[in-house]
Amino acid sequence: MKRGMQLLASYLSGSWSPGSGARTALVNPATEAPIAEVSAGGHDLAAAFAFARTSGAAELNALSFAQRGALLAACAKAIHGAREALIDLAVANGGNTRGDAKFDVDGGSATLGYYAELGARLGNTTHLPDGDPIQVGRTARMGGQHIWARRRGVAVHINAFNFPGWGLCEKLACSLLAGMPTISKPATATALVAHRMMELFAPLLPAGALQMLVGPAGDLLDHVRPGDAVAFTGGSSTARTLRTHPKIVEHNVRLNIEADSLNAAVLAPDVDLSSETGGLFLADVVRDMTQKTGQKCTAIRRVLVPLGKEADVADALKERLAAIQVGDPSLENVRMGPLATAAQAKDIKAGIARLAAATDSIYGGTGEITPVGVPAGKGYFVGPVVRATKDPMNCAPLNEHEVFGPCTTIGSYDGTAVFASAFVAKGDGCLVSSAYSDDRDWVATFVGAAAPWAGRLYLGSSKMAAMSPGPGTALPSLLHGGPGRAGGGEELGGERGLHFYMQRTALEGDASVLKSLLG
Amino acid sequence: MKRGMQLLASYLSGSWSPGSGARTALVNPATEAPIAEVSAGGHDLAAAFAFARTSGAAELNALSFAQRGALLAACAKAIHGAREALIDLAVANGGNTRGDAKFDVDGGSATLGYYAELGARLGNTTHLPDGDPIQVGRTARMGGQHIWARRRGVAVHINAFNFPGWGLCEKLACSLLAGMPTISKPATATALVAHRMMELFAPLLPAGALQMLVGPAGDLLDHVRPGDAVAFTGGSSTARTLRTHPKIVEHNVRLNIEADSLNAAVLAPDVDLSSETGGLFLADVVRDMTQKTGQKCTAIRRVLVPLGKEADVADALKERLAAIQVGDPSLENVRMGPLATAAQAKDIKAGIARLAAATDSIYGGTGEITPVGVPAGKGYFVGPVVRATKDPMNCAPLNEHEVFGPCTTIGSYDGTAVFASAFVAKGDGCLVSSAYSDDRDWVATFVGAAAPWAGRLYLGSSKMAAMSPGPGTALPSLLHGGPGRAGGGEELGGERGLHFYMQRTALEGDASVLKSLLG
Repeated sequence: MKRGMQLLASYLSGSWSPGSGARTALVNPATEAPIAEVSAGGHDLAAAFAFARTSGAAELNALSFAQRGALLAACAKAIHGAREALIDLAVANGGNTRGDAKFDVDGGSATLGYYAELGARLGNTTHLPDGDPIQVGRTARMGGQHIWARRRGVAVHINAFNFPGWGLCEKLACSLLAGMPTISKPATATALVAHRMMELFAPLLPAGALQMLVGPAGDLLDHVRPGDAVAFTGGSSTARTLRTHPKIVEHNVRLNIEADSLNAAVLAPDVDLSSETGGLFLADVVRDMTQKTGQKCTAIRRVLVPLGKEADVADALKERLAAIQVGDPSLENVRMGPLATAAQAKDIKAGIARLAAATDSIYGGTGEITPVGVPAGKGYFVGPVVRATKDPMNCAPLNEHEVFGPCTTIGSYDGTAVFASAFVAKGDGCLVSSAYSDDRDWVATFVGAAAPWAGRLYLGSSKMAAMSPGPGTALPSLLHGGPGRAGGGEELGGERGLHFYMQRTALEGDASVLKSLLG
Repeated sequence: MKRGMQLLASYLSGSWSPGSGARTALVNPATEAPIAEVSAGGHDLAAAFAFARTSGAAELNALSFAQRGALLAACAKAIHGAREALIDLAVANGGNTRGDAKFDVDGGSATLGYYAELGARLGNTTHLPDGDPIQVGRTARMGGQHIWARRRGVAVHINAFNFPGWGLCEKLACSLLAGMPTISKPATATALVAHRMMELFAPLLPAGALQMLVGPAGDLLDHVRPGDAVAFTGGSSTARTLRTHPKIVEHNVRLNIEADSLNAAVLAPDVDLSSETGGLFLADVVRDMTQKTGQKCTAIRRVLVPLGKEADVADALKERLAAIQVGDPSLENVRMGPLATAAQAKDIKAGIARLAAATDSIYGGTGEITPVGVPAGKGYFVGPVVRATKDPMNCAPLNEHEVFGPCTTIGSYDGTAVFASAFVAKGDGCLVSSAYSDDRDWVATFVGAAAPWAGRLYLGSSKMAAMSPGPGTALPSLLHGGPGRAGGGEELGGERGLHFYMQRTALEGDASVLKSLLG
């Protein structure tokens, strides 16, 4: 490790804390070259929580939604101003192509901007009505009114390695607008983008409103108390650890989890592959396989096509995937980079091997590839892989294990919306699933049965094909989260995203008093 | 134990199952006379879950909200028809006075009736819109719409001993109207009322819509899967067991908890005790101490009065409590019965002893009493107890331990709304707290700071004093649940109560398709 390499400090208790102990290198996942370091720990996290509970809480308590929204707008503007540098960091530290990096960085600023506007709309107030006045009892005098109130506690954000920029921003937008001081922990391996954003945000935010721990979590969660809220995005094994964390359990600390998700994409029988809807379907599958090297929690993992159309779909995917150059993402012609870490590459290869034992190869075998533009044997590369099964409903590795990389599996089905929705359900809960159809009856049946198993259903059709962001894009206006295996969480979705950070309280009393309280 | 005593069977898989193994007696807590028995287990709970997932789910899936509401209306009517017998059971098995029994039984039928009406209003549909259509992207064509969809799983209800009737009904009203087949487990010791209600409901409901396990939970929770939902009311130690239950954690099963709650009642400095508001305050404190022998999760445990008014409040409470006869609740002149079980009596005596070590006695010492109308030495009696402290904020046993019986503690304060709200917060999250004031500015400050620490804030004032149900009454139209120590759950609150049993899903696609899906 080179001397003089940048040590990523944490921003805690109002200043930058380098930490202490052994240092870990952050690397460029395409070349394995070290590019920065983090300390093992040595931060005073008890002091950081105290700073949030005192300074951060007092500062945010003094602000209305509109004022907090203005803070988010300033942060969004700061990202815009440093956009090129942030993109370069994402390429170097995340294995991102420039397109991937924009998706992360611009996604972050757009989400901050969306919530800045929401704050402006919510205006000069600090609590929100929930529903209309309620009559309690026999006369209009005795009433009820639900409100959302700012929680007095600390929001702890534990983010995933795949979206260091967007992940920071999408959680922060909601907690900060809701008025909770926040401590954010990016995943260590890809922390450069988040760390740079913290440098940008720190001078713009009130003291204690946002702190950042870079490096291992240490005893972060030992400091939570009643009223705090923990939001986590990551794998299911860490999620289990959080769910059963003694302090979280002891204090009934709110926990929002986004975890594994076996998102499905279903081609309905009415769709011709050469149609607009068919083209959208193919483009979405290929995009989700290759964008961010398949490292999106919303990416399509399972593809369902009507019996008889498997070969056509396979041929079309093969043709599109063959055109995608894999290698060092800083090269202009490369369209897919490496996985973010060595551990991820190992996990994904193991997952593909499990799938391979139960499926046929359509494209890419088990992911062996010679990347372009990198030193021989270096980098965490896995190539795009398409597998196929004739019995998707009973293919256990397909329906039970998320392969978090550039891999998808095609299953065939009888074309019924009933089978399609049951296949979505077979994932035991997902963030998003999609169906491509211009047959409204088919879509209605599919939605009716699939909706309880997905946080979002993306309905591809000819009328929206030209303007669709694809199922893999989490939008600030729509909920992000899913039931069961996906963690049971809810983020974003406009004002809905604030509710995790607020307390819903029923006010009961004289109706005119309640009215005056709402101002 | 007498031969021939009624064995309370469980209603599982469409028939009554007596179970097997050692039998436990349910007793009259006033006399300790056994009145019924339950088996230790021996039920096929795997089959019961399968029955819910097949028959129950299919039956409920075929019904609209209006039709499910009609089922609730039928159940409410059945309770009305058997009201006297149910009240007698509550008196015999619950230690309830007739008034207590009505509160439980009528509360149950009223809650079913409220949700029956809500079902009729929601009408001939099976999913609900959540918010308005959303524009996604630059044109109106690409849209989003959130909906609430029926979850495909089983609702498991684990109820508390204190409200066998209302507890069954308030949870069932929401899960059944939302469309989830339900397995309900009443607390064993006071199961007679719930068991009788199950006998009434069974012929009225579709097969598998409602099952009941009477007796120990056994391996009930080992059968939960993704999509299921568990709602629990009870103590914090059981709550912890549920939170960390391997199957609940493994499958991210939704869990709603109502646990301990140190509800506070605050007298504001503007209120004269002889005023309407002052009278309401005194009546509410006395009611919450003695109704159900203080065994309400919403009962006032902590009372805050302005410095200088402690003696007047103490005198008024003493006078009112002295008029309350304690004994066998089947006697007409008795206004407070025993605690429900020997274990509860022991816990409450221990809690009062802990309080007594840190507070002064105002009334009732540590609860010693000679109940009227019961055999000497029999029954689980504790008398009304009022304690006092000059330092309520730092009285640890007061703010950390719920004494679930006829006991409250008066603390004095400086009269500021800031102190009052901080005192509410000191309970680390409660189901309800109340303030008595006709000073709107004081109330506004109190609400602003106390709201995040309570599921409900009851605002007593002169204008509603004559028609108020008191803070201790959970109404179907207002949320029941609270943050932190209270478990972090949400029940009731009108349509809000259905949401725990439904999945919120974002639909994304062509705006006209989304519109057509909502019908």
